[in-house]
Amino acid sequence: MSEALPPEFARIGRYFRPLAGPGSLDLTDDAAVFVPPPGRELVVAADAMVEGVHFLPGTAPDLVARKLLRVNLSDLAAMGAAPLGYLLTVSVPRSAGEAWFERFSAGLAADQAEFGITLLGGDTTETPGPITLSLTIIGHVTPGQALRRSGARAGDELWVTGTIGDGVLGLEAARGKLPDPDGSLVGRYNLPSPRLGLPLWGLATAAMDVSDGLVQDVGHVCRESGVAAVIEAERVPLSAAAQAAGPAWWEAAITGGDDYELVLAVPPGRDTAMRDIGTRVTRIGRFTSGNGVQMVDARGDSIALSRRGWSHFA
Amino acid sequence: MSEALPPEFARIGRYFRPLAGPGSLDLTDDAAVFVPPPGRELVVAADAMVEGVHFLPGTAPDLVARKLLRVNLSDLAAMGAAPLGYLLTVSVPRSAGEAWFERFSAGLAADQAEFGITLLGGDTTETPGPITLSLTIIGHVTPGQALRRSGARAGDELWVTGTIGDGVLGLEAARGKLPDPDGSLVGRYNLPSPRLGLPLWGLATAAMDVSDGLVQDVGHVCRESGVAAVIEAERVPLSAAAQAAGPAWWEAAITGGDDYELVLAVPPGRDTAMRDIGTRVTRIGRFTSGNGVQMVDARGDSIALSRRGWSHFA
Repeated sequence: MSEALPPEFARIGRYFRPLAGPGSLDLTDDAAVFVPPPGRELVVAADAMVEGVHFLPGTAPDLVARKLLRVNLSDLAAMGAAPLGYLLTVSVPRSAGEAWFERFSAGLAADQAEFGITLLGGDTTETPGPITLSLTIIGHVTPGQALRRSGARAGDELWVTGTIGDGVLGLEAARGKLPDPDGSLVGRYNLPSPRLGLPLWGLATAAMDVSDGLVQDVGHVCRESGVAAVIEAERVPLSAAAQAAGPAWWEAAITGGDDYELVLAVPPGRDTAMRDIGTRVTRIGRFTSGNGVQMVDARGDSIALSRRGWSHFA
Repeated sequence: MSEALPPEFARIGRYFRPLAGPGSLDLTDDAAVFVPPPGRELVVAADAMVEGVHFLPGTAPDLVARKLLRVNLSDLAAMGAAPLGYLLTVSVPRSAGEAWFERFSAGLAADQAEFGITLLGGDTTETPGPITLSLTIIGHVTPGQALRRSGARAGDELWVTGTIGDGVLGLEAARGKLPDPDGSLVGRYNLPSPRLGLPLWGLATAAMDVSDGLVQDVGHVCRESGVAAVIEAERVPLSAAAQAAGPAWWEAAITGGDDYELVLAVPPGRDTAMRDIGTRVTRIGRFTSGNGVQMVDARGDSIALSRRGWSHFA
């Protein structure tokens, strides 16, 4: 008897097998098998993305794929880890069809090449609901050199990579709430840049990526480190597009999510090393004793915020 | 300023942190960090489960959690690997509420104790759709001793663990299509038993778990091994409950999914070792040269099947 395989097997073969790398056994077995990099610790994280919660319905599937990879890579970046590979589960309504898989896998292929990773395994299922994606990223780090959220000390400076707020402003622009003439805000929302490969060990005492908003995520570092933080509002780096949005959007920028920049605690006196770190970094405040996050203006007066963070747009 | 955290943080703390083990950093950081077992290969797999596709709406959340773990553990069992830990993403509608998380995490706790594993990390999100779960299991194996689907050779015997068909008959019983007086069929459907820890290396030449139906999954082993298989219908082990269902359900039993038993290729002459393997095993046929799967009756005549396998009940 010959055997007609269900469509998920054809899809795995057509769209996902070309993405599979060492250890994946070409996705033909029950699991992947690989030798962990000798003498390294493994770093693993998993994030899910749901259509209508983490990305707008109708977003191009290749962008969805790349964002899914990048939000997970950003978790590795925050630990100072290097990426190795990933597993992926994809639950998609039947109506999405072959075109969705073709474009989704093309997005994965593009970012695999960019970040030097390959697919290890996963699962493809149907769903009667929204597209729901889950990705587990596997990376590695020199033993003992994973950067924690808990290492910040009173007296450390507070630094951030890149610019803050483009993610949430890009979402608002995509929803038509905000002009975005050159598309740079929507571009940052759809395609964050995980800050991998920075020489953070020995330089920063704590790190975390900004996924839930600057203020809330600095608050997480404070809580885990047992310290407080003061953020100087005028020092928070904004892109030209975010500045053009005007002051009415400022609070959204510093409390909105999806930046995927890094928050860093850095002992004082390391400005030169920080300038040479390989990407734009800005000192925006300091860690102090106590608890909580305080935002201050140029005179040092406290600025009240009406919200602290977000949970995407659900 | 004090900070009120969004509900997902409270849930992580209340329901998932108690499940977190070594390397998880108490789920307080961007990723988990662990030292892989020295001198071992890592074995990783991921499976998703969607309400209404892989489990019936209204299934007790603790059973859903345990099945999610067990279908992934079954993938490790099929590779001859031992489990280490897992990452989990959970997308749940707001209406599910605290009670769902309480019962779901209680199910995870029960099976963590049973299988000696702990939670490494993950993500909790809302969804406007059905409950959608994804689990990545991490295990380990002696280098070179992962059991592949591709090792079967013409002349090897075809064995299975346990009994076949209880999964799909349990699903039909849960939908009221079939009597199940003692609940054993529904029990097998809801709570499969991953065949971990069997001394398969040096005994079996190939292994795979039966998740998509005996006939289809034997077909996968044949395809990957470049051989054919003959299954002797009367040898396929059925539970007392499956036998009581009667011959009208036989084809469903051997083509239905969710058994999570192991299909094994075993060179002839190892009956004694197979009997001592530590769980019920039955020789049901043999691998031959050629391709495809043939089902034969007691006289050796071919039995035609109207279907080959299933894709759950979507």
